[in-house]
Amino acid sequence: MVDIAARVYNHKWKIDPIVRSLIDTDFYKLLMCQSVFRNRPETNVTFSLINRSKDVRLADLIDEGELREQLDHVRSLSLTRGESTWLRGNTFYGKRQMFRPDFMEFLEGLRLPAYHLEKRDGQYELTFEGPWPQVMLWEIPALAVLMELRSRAVTKDMGRFELQILYARAMTRLWEKVEALRGLGPGLRIADFGTRRRHGFLWQDWCVQAMIEGLGDRFTGTSNCLIAMRRDIEAIGTNAHELPMVYAALADSDAELREAPYHVLADWHEEHDGNLRIILPDTYGSDGFFANAPDWLAGWTGVRIDSGDPVAGAETAIRWWRERGEDPRKKLIIFSDGLDVAMIERLYNRFHDRVKVSFGWGTLLTNDFRGLVAGDGLAPFSLVCKAVAANGRPTVKLSDNPAKATGPADEIARYKDVFAVGAQERQAVLV
Amino acid sequence: MVDIAARVYNHKWKIDPIVRSLIDTDFYKLLMCQSVFRNRPETNVTFSLINRSKDVRLADLIDEGELREQLDHVRSLSLTRGESTWLRGNTFYGKRQMFRPDFMEFLEGLRLPAYHLEKRDGQYELTFEGPWPQVMLWEIPALAVLMELRSRAVTKDMGRFELQILYARAMTRLWEKVEALRGLGPGLRIADFGTRRRHGFLWQDWCVQAMIEGLGDRFTGTSNCLIAMRRDIEAIGTNAHELPMVYAALADSDAELREAPYHVLADWHEEHDGNLRIILPDTYGSDGFFANAPDWLAGWTGVRIDSGDPVAGAETAIRWWRERGEDPRKKLIIFSDGLDVAMIERLYNRFHDRVKVSFGWGTLLTNDFRGLVAGDGLAPFSLVCKAVAANGRPTVKLSDNPAKATGPADEIARYKDVFAVGAQERQAVLV
Repeated sequence: MVDIAARVYNHKWKIDPIVRSLIDTDFYKLLMCQSVFRNRPETNVTFSLINRSKDVRLADLIDEGELREQLDHVRSLSLTRGESTWLRGNTFYGKRQMFRPDFMEFLEGLRLPAYHLEKRDGQYELTFEGPWPQVMLWEIPALAVLMELRSRAVTKDMGRFELQILYARAMTRLWEKVEALRGLGPGLRIADFGTRRRHGFLWQDWCVQAMIEGLGDRFTGTSNCLIAMRRDIEAIGTNAHELPMVYAALADSDAELREAPYHVLADWHEEHDGNLRIILPDTYGSDGFFANAPDWLAGWTGVRIDSGDPVAGAETAIRWWRERGEDPRKKLIIFSDGLDVAMIERLYNRFHDRVKVSFGWGTLLTNDFRGLVAGDGLAPFSLVCKAVAANGRPTVKLSDNPAKATGPADEIARYKDVFAVGAQERQAVLV
Repeated sequence: MVDIAARVYNHKWKIDPIVRSLIDTDFYKLLMCQSVFRNRPETNVTFSLINRSKDVRLADLIDEGELREQLDHVRSLSLTRGESTWLRGNTFYGKRQMFRPDFMEFLEGLRLPAYHLEKRDGQYELTFEGPWPQVMLWEIPALAVLMELRSRAVTKDMGRFELQILYARAMTRLWEKVEALRGLGPGLRIADFGTRRRHGFLWQDWCVQAMIEGLGDRFTGTSNCLIAMRRDIEAIGTNAHELPMVYAALADSDAELREAPYHVLADWHEEHDGNLRIILPDTYGSDGFFANAPDWLAGWTGVRIDSGDPVAGAETAIRWWRERGEDPRKKLIIFSDGLDVAMIERLYNRFHDRVKVSFGWGTLLTNDFRGLVAGDGLAPFSLVCKAVAANGRPTVKLSDNPAKATGPADEIARYKDVFAVGAQERQAVLV
């Protein structure tokens, strides 16, 4: 029976909106936003889209008018009553009222600020400039819009049946990964971190359901707030490079710069405890970070490894805890860089008896369409949206992999000097 | 939006009927039925279900009440106005009015006769006895009902998500087969012969759509009349072992018995020409059939190879045509026994330059769920529904594979003697 009303209703849409909710974003953006709203609300920050995969010529694939329509739609969104209720009433990491009333009021009144869009060399230059707590919330929807418009561009000439097979193949592939992970034993802890690189919203939502059904409580939740709310599961996340990058850019001297990453965590320490106290050590090199870290940081719950050789990174963290008199078996290591099943297995087997291990699985959970269309046009690619300037000064990120460094060359050199970063091993950035 | 009316309507069904149309059957049953209706309408025939796969204990898997409800539903069916219009108005093999007015009147008035059902040793004994033109039409719906009730039994405890993955895997597998077949070149001719062994009606319908989309006009049609009508494609089929088996059982002497297979084809010759003149030589051994065949049979369009080593069978047919002064390149060989992609490739590559080659792809098109559930409970199995007696005499089939022989042992021995069948190579019957 044709549902005529639904069909007519669907025809009335001018566009099929990709981002339909302000909380279709990563949980850690909201956590960081609250921290920024409290500690650095007046900072003027510029976010910019950076496509590390130059061969994916987004401006050739995606129509500018369509892109503007989608971005304009995102600007029309505001927090709904139900979303606000969920954020105010929910328990995150066992804690109620994670979000303070003044922050919730700010969020309820928020509309995302204007964007600036230009085409250059087959790529889009997309920037967002304004008060940090506002522009920072553009990151995830901007990435989601571009990722999904690219998926739509590549699939637009496919027949109904071809599309069905495409998704049957992608589903089968993901399910085989889930089945392999199920073999790892009951100690596995894994979460969806794939919002920013997803093939599309509906696909991410499907992937989360596959993880729920396939892994039960070994699947600990999703970084995506909207999906967490709709599927009644845990929203997952802590903090990211954005905080030390902006704090560092605001430093007025090399001495202040050297302290910036710890300053971020001191602010965080005041606000959060327990599972939210996760160190992300690699912004300016993990080795130096640990060597110079204050003792109170060793008391934190865990470390997230997001670049460089993950085995080496985890061994460094374990060594550091031991040196500071902590028992690594009580500590948590979260792996979140370029994971797929083989690496998850390897890391789980190597570390699960020595520390608590958790995985934040991103791109290859929510966007593994490699090899599924001719020309591999749906293969994931490396698109990011980063804070590039704060109060007029450029930001810098070094990470534990020089291929992931961002910022002007002279500033990169200065940061390397200040943070005493020696030789780093370059690793290919797949996703 | 929930379609409340559709949902309430669906809830009102006492059962979910498996066979919903009298033409949800193989086209050749209707062709043969017309021939029987003309030539042997008074014959009393018994059809019986035979499960060659003893390890699949159908009576343990399938509830008897459910089976009776489904069979009773089949008995309630009659030809609809649209179905009758399609049969009367359609062009089959380029010919209009394939079905004569008197036969169409018979068909329009037909309800399937009573069935007899008993349980024995974990199997169902299901028989149909009565006038041949009526009971013969039970074969396909009976098989379809049992096959699909078995699929339902095996899948009944699976979750919504598990089911989605099951079908995603099956779709992916079939599509990979279709893609492999696409590589064989434009000369390929292949049809769906999978009604009798299908996983389910909706699945067969999906498989046909996959073949249409993937192979274009290299997919020549389906044996299933209902799907042919709904998808607006060709209904495919000619004749089967049933005719010589019953004609043979009715023979009053060994001399008559020896002539029975040719008698069948003489009746067919009067009724049909062109692509419907296909010889099925293996009922009582292909070698003897060809050796003793009258010359007019060499003028027929082609040969269907349905048992034994298909390469040997095709070589025998080619040799026979040459001996009778026919050009094999103008002849058609239809392979229809236990095909899957590797065998289709092998046969196509070996023969497509020497004869016209066509494939009737059955079980492994519409029921390849091997390995897709635990315990392999959805693997296809060898269920048939055969004419076992005619006017009180048992029927016999030998075929080119002694593993497929049916009938009482003493009758098999007599037939082997009459038809001078020597040593035969036994081949495993997979499906």
